[in-house]
Amino acid sequence: MKIRSVLSAAVLAVATTFAAAQALAQDKFTLRLAETWGPNFPIFGDTTKRFAETVNKMSDGRLTVRIDSANKHKAPLGVFDMVKAGQYDMGHSASYYWKGKVPETLFFTSMPFGMNAMEQYAWFYHGGGMELMQEVYGPHNMLSFPGGNTGVQMGGWFRKEIKSLDDLKGLKMRIPGFAGEVFAEVGVNPTNIAPGELYTALERNTIDAVEWVGPALDLRLGFQQIADYYYTGWHEPATELQFLINKRVWDRLPADLQEIMRVAMRTASYDMLVHSQHANAEAWANIKQEYPNVQIKRFPDDIFQAMYEANKKLLKEAASESEMAAKIIDSQQNYLEQSRAYSDISERAYLNTMAEVE
Amino acid sequence: MKIRSVLSAAVLAVATTFAAAQALAQDKFTLRLAETWGPNFPIFGDTTKRFAETVNKMSDGRLTVRIDSANKHKAPLGVFDMVKAGQYDMGHSASYYWKGKVPETLFFTSMPFGMNAMEQYAWFYHGGGMELMQEVYGPHNMLSFPGGNTGVQMGGWFRKEIKSLDDLKGLKMRIPGFAGEVFAEVGVNPTNIAPGELYTALERNTIDAVEWVGPALDLRLGFQQIADYYYTGWHEPATELQFLINKRVWDRLPADLQEIMRVAMRTASYDMLVHSQHANAEAWANIKQEYPNVQIKRFPDDIFQAMYEANKKLLKEAASESEMAAKIIDSQQNYLEQSRAYSDISERAYLNTMAEVE
Repeated sequence: MKIRSVLSAAVLAVATTFAAAQALAQDKFTLRLAETWGPNFPIFGDTTKRFAETVNKMSDGRLTVRIDSANKHKAPLGVFDMVKAGQYDMGHSASYYWKGKVPETLFFTSMPFGMNAMEQYAWFYHGGGMELMQEVYGPHNMLSFPGGNTGVQMGGWFRKEIKSLDDLKGLKMRIPGFAGEVFAEVGVNPTNIAPGELYTALERNTIDAVEWVGPALDLRLGFQQIADYYYTGWHEPATELQFLINKRVWDRLPADLQEIMRVAMRTASYDMLVHSQHANAEAWANIKQEYPNVQIKRFPDDIFQAMYEANKKLLKEAASESEMAAKIIDSQQNYLEQSRAYSDISERAYLNTMAEVE
Repeated sequence: MKIRSVLSAAVLAVATTFAAAQALAQDKFTLRLAETWGPNFPIFGDTTKRFAETVNKMSDGRLTVRIDSANKHKAPLGVFDMVKAGQYDMGHSASYYWKGKVPETLFFTSMPFGMNAMEQYAWFYHGGGMELMQEVYGPHNMLSFPGGNTGVQMGGWFRKEIKSLDDLKGLKMRIPGFAGEVFAEVGVNPTNIAPGELYTALERNTIDAVEWVGPALDLRLGFQQIADYYYTGWHEPATELQFLINKRVWDRLPADLQEIMRVAMRTASYDMLVHSQHANAEAWANIKQEYPNVQIKRFPDDIFQAMYEANKKLLKEAASESEMAAKIIDSQQNYLEQSRAYSDISERAYLNTMAEVE
């Protein structure tokens, strides 16, 4: 054996050992994420992009998240199934979309007359909410994390003013989910229509009213051009989106990358609430200036009271159908009661004080 | 040369090269952080602990933050100077403590009749607030980041009910800072007293009223035992704490650790707001149950109006004394106006609706 080849062999052996050690600590991962939204959907889509960017920077490129929007995977409401089956590693969507499959998923987005965003985050992180959510998603081999909040959603655009409960009878309104069921209890005909057809449906009186999100996203669909009455919210006071992760994928990640994911999701979700506040305020200023026809309205007290009763009735029914639902509703109601008593003497009192000075 | 020693030399050379490469990517850093608070100070101190823990986990131990509380460094209000001089790498404090040194630092904590927490985060991250803060801290070789929010602070504990502006004349109250100056304009004698002496001062009528933080921190000091009137807030609607970092220290960190720091600070600050909501609600439930003597009060409208005018006057004075202050006040007022118009039709409308049903 020549000295030269001994040396090469030694170099190779040592290099291999170091490379192996390096690989252990420095394995690279790429996670594929399916989002319910179309490409470049404002605010919601910014949240996944921001999350992916943060994860990549914090991990120094060891963890990459590749986002497929709905135009790519063609299954906006298939995110739950795709992540469960491992077709995608992660999803970004909203928990209440799965209530047809797993009724208890309904409760982790936002509930009519429920907690506002701060109260709900406090419930998730200090009031047992995260644990209940994992109890619901665990059997489906997934982890679910808060994925971005819209804040209080607006009550919707109406072409005619709603002055009494009678005005709601037979009213055709685009409003999906549990809130639609509440509305149905007071006589509304709730329907669901694809976003792209909403403007025309409202313009041609196929529907009389439409609930979407808030000023920033509503403005793009143009409702302010054809409806004068913009109602304040009651039905989704803190719509929280959701990150879903396949549990086998999660378990393969080393502890530092898991923590990077956890913190990046948590920040992205808070950031979306702050982004929503900014974008909604900007859009609302724009609407006020460009569309003086638009008036802010609040449903009369008797309508709120009737919807509040209807909501209680529906919650009672849901609780009677599932022990898990009963447990979640109970936890949320108790937490809301305690948390709201404080919100009333702090945030609400302050905003009301400010509304009276000047 | 024997084969054996050639081999050893080769191994050594290769090992050294790999170790050097490893070191570059894997240098370890320890940052020393001085906090204004005493050891185990609730909520505020939890924020620095949570931050340090997150940073350590996300960096897989490459970045350690060692926290010194006030009992260690003995200079609770020396944090600015110590971080500036490099005695400490980082600080956790509140920006308004430095207004005696750099008047413009006042504006980055919370202002009377100013933005609430969501509005203020939106201003920091989307309305130019972060850039203005760096303009103020840059000349002192420091970076400043939001460091945790208390939410709306309560207006304080009063032993006698305040029914008119006359009741404020000559009233001795512990209320520091800009809010104290506003109170002084309407006849109050604001004083500052060390936390440990507040209870006795209030009990012995050395002072007539005391402003502290909110239910969670107030409860510990026992004011509810000797004062019946707990007033809603107006003076610190969104008190934001602060992380301070020496710029030379920051510049030495590789890009991935900088991002880990940035995201960990951001999450810790949001998390404190959520933690405050939880802890305040819990403490308020406790006070309501154990101290039925305590009544929530709101200053009469004419008092709010007088303080609102006084605040405007003081802001005008501050703006006339410094171009930078004028620029910040202008930015904050414009942002508040636009943001609040939206908060009024969303968060405020919703909380008021909920207060009326049931």
